[in-house]
Amino acid sequence: MNDHTLPTDETHGLIASDKVEDTSVYNPAGEKLGTIANFMVGKQSGQVEYAVLRFGGFLGLGADHYPLPWDMLTYDTEQDGYVVDISRDKLENAPRYGDVEPSFDRAYGEQVYGHYGLAYS
Amino acid sequence: MNDHTLPTDETHGLIASDKVEDTSVYNPAGEKLGTIANFMVGKQSGQVEYAVLRFGGFLGLGADHYPLPWDMLTYDTEQDGYVVDISRDKLENAPRYGDVEPSFDRAYGEQVYGHYGLAYS
Repeated sequence: MNDHTLPTDETHGLIASDKVEDTSVYNPAGEKLGTIANFMVGKQSGQVEYAVLRFGGFLGLGADHYPLPWDMLTYDTEQDGYVVDISRDKLENAPRYGDVEPSFDRAYGEQVYGHYGLAYS
Repeated sequence: MNDHTLPTDETHGLIASDKVEDTSVYNPAGEKLGTIANFMVGKQSGQVEYAVLRFGGFLGLGADHYPLPWDMLTYDTEQDGYVVDISRDKLENAPRYGDVEPSFDRAYGEQVYGHYGLAYS
């Protein structure tokens, strides 16, 4: 049963939702972009559609929230955080919201995924 | 754009991870089984494999944790919580862990899903 001697991360690679939240997010240049606020899951499918990057604000208010397609996040053990390949410039033009969540409908999904050059299915 | 006038829950049905956590879980008889501790997500796939039901304990210590296949949970707006069709007896024999997470590998997945009569894929 050698396949069971590897750490969890290397075998089936599950991560707990409450460990993802508040984890730092960096770009490949090592600049901190923000932290993960939460992620958005399809109630029926159980599929994570977005990890929401939070930047700025104070005590949970006034922050900007950038929904990112889940596939864009890579965990970096060295930085103990997620790395996404987005420049600050690209992020400044990205779909975002404040304290009020948008309607996460298909049109919004196409807008967000489209901004990052991905297909929303 | 009539399809955009429905509440989010009725259109694409996304839910935020931090709203799932600490939500109450009931069985169909209305008995409270516990609360959602967190859920476990495939790092690569973004697929939620388990919602973890927490029962007992104090200040986050000493609780029992029952990983449940995501598909078993149904949100009940009347009870403002999740409903799972598990009797207390069934739950008492279910796979569980304490303060230390198990290795969420394939064998564990088959054990948990199998207990509830589901296939682990």
